[in-house]
Amino acid sequence: MALSHATSGEVVDVRPLGNAIGTAITHTIVKTNDLEVIRIVLLAGNDLPPHAVPGDITVQCLEGKVTFGVGNLVRELTAGKFLYVEGGVKHSLLAREDSTLLVTIALKHKP
Amino acid sequence: MALSHATSGEVVDVRPLGNAIGTAITHTIVKTNDLEVIRIVLLAGNDLPPHAVPGDITVQCLEGKVTFGVGNLVRELTAGKFLYVEGGVKHSLLAREDSTLLVTIALKHKP
Repeated sequence: MALSHATSGEVVDVRPLGNAIGTAITHTIVKTNDLEVIRIVLLAGNDLPPHAVPGDITVQCLEGKVTFGVGNLVRELTAGKFLYVEGGVKHSLLAREDSTLLVTIALKHKP
Repeated sequence: MALSHATSGEVVDVRPLGNAIGTAITHTIVKTNDLEVIRIVLLAGNDLPPHAVPGDITVQCLEGKVTFGVGNLVRELTAGKFLYVEGGVKHSLLAREDSTLLVTIALKHKP
């Protein structure tokens, strides 16, 4: 079943998946003109190679452990840790454990 | 001590406050041109009366229980529940228990 985007006022569960994480997939929860919210599922050993997006981003680790590279910095994120990445800055992720992340992007509009 | 805003790549702890909630205050974690992230502390019985902001918002309950009114809908949010509110839509909060919420606003720029 394709997962649809949440509508305004619709309650979405973003609690840790626990044992269900192995069968979960990355899913866009919200997509509007200005905002995109994605729940990223990254199993242990998997990575997202360095990339950048035009808009500011926030990343919140919901469960697991990831090594997060941002610019020249390397950070470790575990459940309940949060960081912000300035738009245009390269970042990368490597899952040390089965992990989920809530990522919010302030979408940039072309002038 | 005034709490400063997080810089790009700075790790912030957004885990539940637990017993420390009684002495915590609402704090803006991130403020950029495009994005604002606020950790709202709302003790049991306190409310935020109906209001609207121009940009799209996401609200994630980190702990506690709040009744969330959005448009004509009434929702209950507990830890790990998330919703999105379309920009310009009136919403209100009433804390049923001592609660913290992570609120993200996609800031609208005047054309």
